[in-house]
Amino acid sequence: MKGVTKLKYKKIPEATIRRLSRYSRSLEEMEGKGEKVVSSALLAKKCAVNAAQVRKDLAYFGEFGIRGVGYYVEDLLNNIKKILGSNKEWKMAVIGIGNLGAALLSYKDFLKQNYTIVAAFDIDPPRVIGRVSEKLGKPAEVIHINRIKEVARERKIDIGVIATPPSEAQSVANLLVEAGVRGILNFAPAQVTVPAGFVVKDVFFTTILDNLAYLLSTETGYSIDRK
Amino acid sequence: MKGVTKLKYKKIPEATIRRLSRYSRSLEEMEGKGEKVVSSALLAKKCAVNAAQVRKDLAYFGEFGIRGVGYYVEDLLNNIKKILGSNKEWKMAVIGIGNLGAALLSYKDFLKQNYTIVAAFDIDPPRVIGRVSEKLGKPAEVIHINRIKEVARERKIDIGVIATPPSEAQSVANLLVEAGVRGILNFAPAQVTVPAGFVVKDVFFTTILDNLAYLLSTETGYSIDRK
Repeated sequence: MKGVTKLKYKKIPEATIRRLSRYSRSLEEMEGKGEKVVSSALLAKKCAVNAAQVRKDLAYFGEFGIRGVGYYVEDLLNNIKKILGSNKEWKMAVIGIGNLGAALLSYKDFLKQNYTIVAAFDIDPPRVIGRVSEKLGKPAEVIHINRIKEVARERKIDIGVIATPPSEAQSVANLLVEAGVRGILNFAPAQVTVPAGFVVKDVFFTTILDNLAYLLSTETGYSIDRK
Repeated sequence: MKGVTKLKYKKIPEATIRRLSRYSRSLEEMEGKGEKVVSSALLAKKCAVNAAQVRKDLAYFGEFGIRGVGYYVEDLLNNIKKILGSNKEWKMAVIGIGNLGAALLSYKDFLKQNYTIVAAFDIDPPRVIGRVSEKLGKPAEVIHINRIKEVARERKIDIGVIATPPSEAQSVANLLVEAGVRGILNFAPAQVTVPAGFVVKDVFFTTILDNLAYLLSTETGYSIDRK
């Protein structure tokens, strides 16, 4: 309130952010194919939304397209990436190398985006190392969780991915906070709390299933996500 | 339009549905501990939202609480489950038993909710069976994808979970549709389309990361999810 000089930014709804991420992926494909321009209708079709929604979403950050042409693929992609913060490289660590942790380590789609896993932590590295090196097909390294603060700083980790059992989630989150890792992606089905300035994004499979069950129980048969 | 006699239902926003799912989990814990009543303030605190939001969300389906008391835990839980459709048992199949598929098969939190995995499919059952039985610690069964239609009908599968590589996602979705499996949870980073009456819910890790990256790039430091 007093003397705030930071730029204000327009708050973009979460659903828009999710769609921007979809648009970004489609635009990348188009760019890869050498396509220069795209109409809102075509972009909408590729992303399974309607064209009016595309125009509305892009208008949030002042992209209005060019009449009779549409959008320039490269410019639009760059602008969306800037908005999403996905134009910079994000360094991630996975904590807890069970099935899910191993799945995340070998998830190839991260590489297409600017997300890189730079470290893997577990409470028992010797026990889990086989699982990881088998999947990744290269000598992999799993670091003891005790070293997380030191390694997080050395490797400039931005995002910690919690893939531990729920009972360990909060203590891992605390370690990440102490290490100055500002972003947490939490797959452990447990609520974790962090101080102001840190961000937690939960991925609870049962919450997602509850959402699907709700959609199946209603009679629309549409995915809210796609609207 | 002509002679529609189906009940209309109040459309509940997706963010509310996600929070209802959170409330449901907290209420289950409270019920397990024998707690009879809960105030909106306490429920809000446990779910990391504010009390006004709780009251607003519950008002969507006519739950207004009792002045000076709050909500009856058991009644509220039952009503939320009815809304979410999570009062019925949902039978799931996992398709594609890689790391992620195996992680989902051993994900214990499903059991606490009414979600049961009743079948696992892969294109090469002998190759992946070791992975599954090791995790589950019991003789497990992985069925060839060719049998999906027959098995989906026999076992009355409601939800198909796609955990295949992206290149296979659409053809698996087609098989699920042919088998009459109305709900699809799609983990493969590929857009799949289904006819009207079917529901797809995507879980794209990079989309979730884009959302987190966006939050980290803005200066609020709050998770939109928690609001």
